[in-house]
Amino acid sequence: MAKPDGLPAMTYRFLGRSGLQVSSISLGGWLTYGGHVDREGTYACMKAAYDSGVNFFDCAEAYAGGESEIVMGEAIKKYGWNRNDLVISTKIYWGGAFGKNPVNNLGLSRKHIVEGVNASLKRLDLEYVDLIYAHRPDRKTPMEETVRAFNHIIDSGKAFYWGTSEWTGVEIAEAWRVADRLGLIGPLMEQPAYNMLNRAKVEGDYQFLYRQHGLGLTVFSPLYQGILSGKYKNGIPDDSRFAQTEVPFIAGYWKRTGKEAWQEIINRVNKLEPIADRLGVKQAALALAWVLKNDNVSSAITGASSPEQVYENIKALEVVDKLTPEILAEIDDILGNKPPQLNDRE
Amino acid sequence: MAKPDGLPAMTYRFLGRSGLQVSSISLGGWLTYGGHVDREGTYACMKAAYDSGVNFFDCAEAYAGGESEIVMGEAIKKYGWNRNDLVISTKIYWGGAFGKNPVNNLGLSRKHIVEGVNASLKRLDLEYVDLIYAHRPDRKTPMEETVRAFNHIIDSGKAFYWGTSEWTGVEIAEAWRVADRLGLIGPLMEQPAYNMLNRAKVEGDYQFLYRQHGLGLTVFSPLYQGILSGKYKNGIPDDSRFAQTEVPFIAGYWKRTGKEAWQEIINRVNKLEPIADRLGVKQAALALAWVLKNDNVSSAITGASSPEQVYENIKALEVVDKLTPEILAEIDDILGNKPPQLNDRE
Amino acid sequence: MAKPDGLPAMTYRFLGRSGLQVSSISLGGWLTYGGHVDREGTYACMKAAYDSGVNFFDCAEAYAGGESEIVMGEAIKKYGWNRNDLVISTKIYWGGAFGKNPVNNLGLSRKHIVEGVNASLKRLDLEYVDLIYAHRPDRKTPMEETVRAFNHIIDSGKAFYWGTSEWTGVEIAEAWRVADRLGLIGPLMEQPAYNMLNRAKVEGDYQFLYRQHGLGLTVFSPLYQGILSGKYKNGIPDDSRFAQTEVPFIAGYWKRTGKEAWQEIINRVNKLEPIADRLGVKQAALALAWVLKNDNVSSAITGASSPEQVYENIKALEVVDKLTPEILAEIDDILGNKPPQLNDRE
Amino acid sequence: MAKPDGLPAMTYRFLGRSGLQVSSISLGGWLTYGGHVDREGTYACMKAAYDSGVNFFDCAEAYAGGESEIVMGEAIKKYGWNRNDLVISTKIYWGGAFGKNPVNNLGLSRKHIVEGVNASLKRLDLEYVDLIYAHRPDRKTPMEETVRAFNHIIDSGKAFYWGTSEWTGVEIAEAWRVADRLGLIGPLMEQPAYNMLNRAKVEGDYQFLYRQHGLGLTVFSPLYQGILSGKYKNGIPDDSRFAQTEVPFIAGYWKRTGKEAWQEIINRVNKLEPIADRLGVKQAALALAWVLKNDNVSSAITGASSPEQVYENIKALEVVDKLTPEILAEIDDILGNKPPQLNDRE
Repeated sequence: MAKPDGLPAMTYRFLGRSGLQVSSISLGGWLTYGGHVDREGTYACMKAAYDSGVNFFDCAEAYAGGESEIVMGEAIKKYGWNRNDLVISTKIYWGGAFGKNPVNNLGLSRKHIVEGVNASLKRLDLEYVDLIYAHRPDRKTPMEETVRAFNHIIDSGKAFYWGTSEWTGVEIAEAWRVADRLGLIGPLMEQPAYNMLNRAKVEGDYQFLYRQHGLGLTVFSPLYQGILSGKYKNGIPDDSRFAQTEVPFIAGYWKRTGKEAWQEIINRVNKLEPIADRLGVKQAALALAWVLKNDNVSSAITGASSPEQVYENIKALEVVDKLTPEILAEIDDILGNKPPQLNDRE
Repeated sequence: MAKPDGLPAMTYRFLGRSGLQVSSISLGGWLTYGGHVDREGTYACMKAAYDSGVNFFDCAEAYAGGESEIVMGEAIKKYGWNRNDLVISTKIYWGGAFGKNPVNNLGLSRKHIVEGVNASLKRLDLEYVDLIYAHRPDRKTPMEETVRAFNHIIDSGKAFYWGTSEWTGVEIAEAWRVADRLGLIGPLMEQPAYNMLNRAKVEGDYQFLYRQHGLGLTVFSPLYQGILSGKYKNGIPDDSRFAQTEVPFIAGYWKRTGKEAWQEIINRVNKLEPIADRLGVKQAALALAWVLKNDNVSSAITGASSPEQVYENIKALEVVDKLTPEILAEIDDILGNKPPQLNDRE
Repeated sequence: MAKPDGLPAMTYRFLGRSGLQVSSISLGGWLTYGGHVDREGTYACMKAAYDSGVNFFDCAEAYAGGESEIVMGEAIKKYGWNRNDLVISTKIYWGGAFGKNPVNNLGLSRKHIVEGVNASLKRLDLEYVDLIYAHRPDRKTPMEETVRAFNHIIDSGKAFYWGTSEWTGVEIAEAWRVADRLGLIGPLMEQPAYNMLNRAKVEGDYQFLYRQHGLGLTVFSPLYQGILSGKYKNGIPDDSRFAQTEVPFIAGYWKRTGKEAWQEIINRVNKLEPIADRLGVKQAALALAWVLKNDNVSSAITGASSPEQVYENIKALEVVDKLTPEILAEIDDILGNKPPQLNDRE
Repeated sequence: MAKPDGLPAMTYRFLGRSGLQVSSISLGGWLTYGGHVDREGTYACMKAAYDSGVNFFDCAEAYAGGESEIVMGEAIKKYGWNRNDLVISTKIYWGGAFGKNPVNNLGLSRKHIVEGVNASLKRLDLEYVDLIYAHRPDRKTPMEETVRAFNHIIDSGKAFYWGTSEWTGVEIAEAWRVADRLGLIGPLMEQPAYNMLNRAKVEGDYQFLYRQHGLGLTVFSPLYQGILSGKYKNGIPDDSRFAQTEVPFIAGYWKRTGKEAWQEIINRVNKLEPIADRLGVKQAALALAWVLKNDNVSSAITGASSPEQVYENIKALEVVDKLTPEILAEIDDILGNKPPQLNDRE
């Protein structure tokens, strides 16, 4: 499918306090590259995104057992894109699939960070990534070892910036403490799940970090695995992704939540439908634009299994300006989950 | 009333990672000193506590507009206690009552910290306190200014250790970052509300700080203003403290919670009664002992309006060992509010 | 004269990035205290200011050969003001009047800073000032010596914050470099002349320092020695302050400028009169409000030789909100001296 | 044209406080390499300069869209010059021409500095440059990111020294603050426009930096695009460079200045002609020698479109010693633009 007429122009945002700019909508690898989308389909999605102005492509060593990185690297070469025009990321934590004795292919030891990054670069067939993330916190490894190792990755030219994913605010602040004491580079960005139904970290726990360190966010799951698109408004069909046991996060979600809580969520999401209708937009576009309305979000990482989905996501850019303070307040009332804000002085 | 026979021996705990020991049960100033207990009554409570082994007496510049510090200082002199045997604290933040133009008698600027401590020491008639707390976070003042000022208080001999009260975990970590970078003394202890009904900060947000910094806790409100004693099990009488509008925190609580949520809390507390009965202890003692069962708690600060209450509180020490893992699990099930624990590696 | 009805309420601003608040209009010592206003007149001015909400009183060791500090200290005691409610400053550089051999009573050596501050505190009869300024840069003394000495003044409890007066932006940045490298306290605020006719430093040279260090400004000469009040619109009377040879700054100004340039200035000031008329305010109030419209200004230091003048100055607070972007642009056009602004990226 | 007899011997100056020596006259790339001079002409100019003792050749990624670097690299190889005998520079900031999505090919982010340097080295076909400059300040990127990136370039062997171009004094001092705090390499040199008509930065704003950091200067535009050669003394011919719209800096100048201001400049320049005549030198040589008379200037970067021009420029070396204090004072009087000098103590 060719790029449709009238697609809104991409916008770019600085990644936190840095001098790097990322497209406000980006493409993420969890489901896309080398996952349950075939190789040619992935190429097509990446091309549709690139042609629409997406410059940030997000990956991880753990996605599809390393296949995501391989396919992403192939697409870059296939289309001959200029490396300078791209912001490529990967994440290190679960490298377990790639060794016979996986005890050291896990976590944030210096050994796994260095070996993991080298293996990722080889799969991507790149000399460096722009962004390297710690895919989760590793509380067995001293913070100093981890901070030193990521600083080393940057010093050796294999990445430009490092960040975290799903760390607590305290852990990010601790990483900065170690970095500051040693004169090393601290974490620039965090990659949390963020959407209308998950606000505690981004709008609560991290609050103080934006002003202290200029923390940037590249958020995933803006549609909460599709729940916020409204597609489950009549309940979950048996053949949905939520029944696919090979998708552990979703399965885990299902287990954690339970059917009752699940119905409560669906009910709340359904109340957002009239707002989308009033604005004349799809519910998914409303949810994605809502994420981008948060100034601390540098990029919303979207998945896609077809170029159509890529273009659909990008259309959400048109919705951002429609979200007036009044509509945002109305949404807050429906969601009922806005975390308390820090007061400057009591 | 004289010290009753059979009162359990006081226990002492190190205050976090420090070399200072505090009595696991301590006496706090919010209601006690110079509040709605009369002067002689306060003296008597302090003597009962001291005679029972309490060594830590907690105060604040804001308690009773400075009166609490005055009465506490008088009691120390009246009974001729050895200064070395005491751990005295106060807290700085709200000094607004003490000037015509209060703009600078508030918060954690260097000016107010220094002037506030000087005024507190004058009211206490002491040369130094053992512990000085920032009574709340002040997000208008840069963290560096606050950390430098508390370090200065310690350097100038006016306190031995400094800590925080009701800060977020991120803020405590940031204070440590600044202190570490500048080679200054970081915060040793935090004073949060902690009880069966309020566990998020102590068991959640602060988790990483115990192991990283040896953060110590001196917790207040172990009975949640008496709610956990079970005395409201049939509802709130009109003459209870919860109707006293001059107690802003409680009034605020009442307002924040609403009658429905309030009944839900009472119901949950009532379910704890059978456990207390089974152990043959009062419900208040169960609640207080439960707080002390948390190894990260260095001291539980209790209030008292009579020596009897002091002794009653101390009896809770006997209950601590009765709280087996099985009983704690049973309580967790009733409360349903245990925060997720940090995993070392996922 | 009693405080007039309808005087606008004082506003307070944080001093740069600090947690200290100063009244947006303050009283300065150059002409007022112990200068050509008599002692009782000075007391009256200070009382009028204090009663109007002024909390910041500015002085210097050099003002009236030390007499200004003496009179200011007397007023504080005479009226029994609470020290906490006041922000008192002095400045060190020219202490030459106080010794027989003045070679070391000048500049920013450690010797003169420490001896100068001690002498100032004695004259003020205070234990500390809130703010201590380097009254000018001293390029004979190494920056490290000066920064260490001011840090020492704060460490020894004789001041809370230190700053500079009429330093270049490069010198302030150099002071921060030394402070940062050594972990010492850097300069918080600068005291430049700032008014409609002198904008180069405040709006030009210092631009980058506001965002980098949260530099605060306490500006003097908001009316440019009365020129901006329009009182010289028909030329300079022979008995004006500009003929008083004992006021060296003014004499110097006269000499530096020359009659022709002087007339050119008068012409420009006269063009502001219609704007003041249109707003229905005095020209002096327009000029003072214009200074306060700059968010980087924490306080405008005014002089006064009578309570009436104090009240007159405070009335300028009402004018601040009347200065719309359109009017400010009109003023810029008349003045023609707005410095080029820093661009973020070219 | 062969090197003429009697050409003065080149002189060499240390680049600021460093141990590196550059020829006091150097050749710059803005107009020369790959610009409107053809390839063979550029080779010839470089050879003439090299044969006359010029060792410093200045370039930038932005000159002629990268072509300048390519031609300069070709000349070095063509003539087989020893790399050790050369001081080669380039500058990073505007790399926008080299990608489809230029958002990250601009400014001083770590990404663009690293990618920009790599691309420049490839075009130059060199392993390293001697000097790498930040071609402008980038106020969107934190100073720490920029300083770390240039330090990284030096650490990875791709340059020996780094500096700035057209930064303010405050920004250079801030770069040093960051470098000093982190133990990194600070900026050694600045490349400003400097000539008889533009003295504010070099003789004013930077004053304090020479003594503090030993800042070195490699100045461009010593003849102010030929204006100071006197060639426009009768007005501007239609075919002069000032009419060429494809030279944006000049066009910009023309637009910024206006015809009146332009004539005022010409008049002032014409007053310098008698001085040149009296000394028996060309006006251009006088202007260039005047720049070299400033001891803070390490090298004056000249352009040339033919070997003759190269030799002509070098003859200015003979004029330097003829500029006695009396003549310099006479020039100052004509120019009327000498910035106020810093006094050591007031």
